Amino acid sequence: MRRALNLAALGVDRTSPNPLVGAVVLDAAGELVGEGFHARAGEPHAEVGALAQAGARARGGTLIVTLEPCSHHGRTPPCTEAVIAAGISRVVVAMADPDPRVDGGGIARLRGAGLEVIEAVAEAEALRLNRAFVHRVRTGRPLGILKWAMSLDGRTALANGQSQWISGPDARAWVHGLRARCDAVIVGGGTLRADDPLLTSRSRRDPEPLRVVLSRSLDLPDEAQLWDQAVATTLVAHGPMSGPDQQEREARAAATCALLDRLGVDRLELGSCEPAPLLEALAARGCNRVLWECGPDLAAAALSQGCVQELAAVIAPKLLGGLAARTPLGNLGLEGMDQVQPWRAHERRDLGSDLLWELESLESPAVHPGSFTVGVGSARPGSAG
Amino acid sequence: MRRALNLAALGVDRTSPNPLVGAVVLDAAGELVGEGFHARAGEPHAEVGALAQAGARARGGTLIVTLEPCSHHGRTPPCTEAVIAAGISRVVVAMADPDPRVDGGGIARLRGAGLEVIEAVAEAEALRLNRAFVHRVRTGRPLGILKWAMSLDGRTALANGQSQWISGPDARAWVHGLRARCDAVIVGGGTLRADDPLLTSRSRRDPEPLRVVLSRSLDLPDEAQLWDQAVATTLVAHGPMSGPDQQEREARAAATCALLDRLGVDRLELGSCEPAPLLEALAARGCNRVLWECGPDLAAAALSQGCVQELAAVIAPKLLGGLAARTPLGNLGLEGMDQVQPWRAHERRDLGSDLLWELESLESPAVHPGSFTVGVGSARPGSAG
Repeated sequence: MRRALNLAALGVDRTSPNPLVGAVVLDAAGELVGEGFHARAGEPHAEVGALAQAGARARGGTLIVTLEPCSHHGRTPPCTEAVIAAGISRVVVAMADPDPRVDGGGIARLRGAGLEVIEAVAEAEALRLNRAFVHRVRTGRPLGILKWAMSLDGRTALANGQSQWISGPDARAWVHGLRARCDAVIVGGGTLRADDPLLTSRSRRDPEPLRVVLSRSLDLPDEAQLWDQAVATTLVAHGPMSGPDQQEREARAAATCALLDRLGVDRLELGSCEPAPLLEALAARGCNRVLWECGPDLAAAALSQGCVQELAAVIAPKLLGGLAARTPLGNLGLEGMDQVQPWRAHERRDLGSDLLWELESLESPAVHPGSFTVGVGSARPGSAG
Repeated sequence: MRRALNLAALGVDRTSPNPLVGAVVLDAAGELVGEGFHARAGEPHAEVGALAQAGARARGGTLIVTLEPCSHHGRTPPCTEAVIAAGISRVVVAMADPDPRVDGGGIARLRGAGLEVIEAVAEAEALRLNRAFVHRVRTGRPLGILKWAMSLDGRTALANGQSQWISGPDARAWVHGLRARCDAVIVGGGTLRADDPLLTSRSRRDPEPLRVVLSRSLDLPDEAQLWDQAVATTLVAHGPMSGPDQQEREARAAATCALLDRLGVDRLELGSCEPAPLLEALAARGCNRVLWECGPDLAAAALSQGCVQELAAVIAPKLLGGLAARTPLGNLGLEGMDQVQPWRAHERRDLGSDLLWELESLESPAVHPGSFTVGVGSARPGSAG
């Protein structure tokens, strides 16, 4: 299973909306005869690749796969049928597929066909590997990461708004890699107006993550790096176009809409201009993981609406000071220290002279380093089919 | 010299205003015959203790001492005369004594008496061990440490002012130990009014560090933990009692003065109510190292006036949010990112679930871990007398 999980990880950054899956086929004598992983949505599933490699040697053998084989027709035919047709006699599965179209149906189908199925082998590791996919399937929203860079005194800009650069080049390169691990990067209209960001992974991901602007006013600049659709795709999301204050901003909003249409920038009208409906729309577009790179008010709204499961704070060894200087978060409406939820420290490391501290919501599944000790041999007997 | 430095460190927290000093005596054959360290101001110097232990075996031997022996009469007679009288033929010294009453005079006296003197052995380590003493002697002010506890989003309190407790019990215990390493702990009147702090080391240091309140208004509460002089001594420092706005606050200030006098709390009138003159007054009272545990405005003033050489930030894995919530630092008057000075990371470690990050001013001497490799055998020949 460790090998299958490593294979699964080869598809990282490219399988959304699908999960990462790896598979290994052993012949009847226990010898490795096939390997496969899911490389990209629309391409063959991991099991199919591993079975094809094994050919006739799969007969009477064992399939070890990180995710329950699918039993439904999607963009590819059901994997259960390919497993049965290959003559596999035993299937070892790390985790059930939370997709409601599968959800145990694949395992039931295999058992119904007389195959032995061993479940929940290295399940915690498999869940962690696919935590963004699992979160999206369970909640209907992509997993959200909130990232910011600040000084040691908690400032994201000087009093005059200057913010480039608080963190050093190593930290900025790390952010490019972080974007490559996400399907979309979200800012608000204020960040677009103030910083004119590029928001790409600098070609570390192909295609680049979707760049999303959530704009209440649609008062957006005529010139912006985000408007260049040759670099990466941009989506401008906004609230209902008709509203009480619509009249006064109508002209500006209409001009922006015309500009976006002319530039080929996608537009999306949400039921309300809030983080939660935006994430639901992005989940429907196949996003498993999104990155919030926004200002304090949108960040606070995203947190308050349960749209953030992971934090990534870059802390620079500098002091900016200033009561008017910007800070990472707006009002969370907390009135007592007992309402403050701690986050679980995940990783901490140096990025040049800056410090990166990554944390996770206590609701996320935790996997402690070194807990990966299970293999086929240690499958829990109680969970064997 | 390593042994002498370790001996010197035994006096930590207790020698102010004096430096830490350790000494080792070898006989003519190179065998260890005496050890000593300076335990407390007014008690014998390290050399005297080591020579007393060595007795007649010091004759023709070597004295290894972390600081240049003194050549002046202070509370004890000059050590140079004791070294000469003991018949020592070679003295190895880590660093010269920056005290203007010594400042090379001790080494000159020894050489004048015909002793061989080897200087600057493990000098960087000795300077670092006594950096607070050296800073005070060179600048006329104690070395300042600014400490704060904040949330991951840089907040030191909720919007309603609640701040107990952002950090956990391990971090709070660490602060007690930090206070024990300081000669005085400073807050402003605002912190006294808002938090009613105790500011002691919880008996880790005897006597407790001096508790100092720098108050512009002298509008201080009648009841406060700081007023209990049985626990620890408190000093209230303030600006000139006569001033343009004196009349309106005169009654309140006079009442506070009467209260302090009744309670036996020391008062100090400064030329101006600012960090720099306060530190000069504390240096004159024998403080080598002070801790700033104050609010954002006094912290910013202390930084701006060069009264902070070390930072200790405790960062809790929590988000407090809120534009009105308190932050560690007030306005530093910075107008461009190029005016922002980076600090040098010194130590970083976990305090329970909180993170401690200690940093130093780039003007402080740096000693990298593992650089301590010199000993008597590797004394630089060029520096031998």
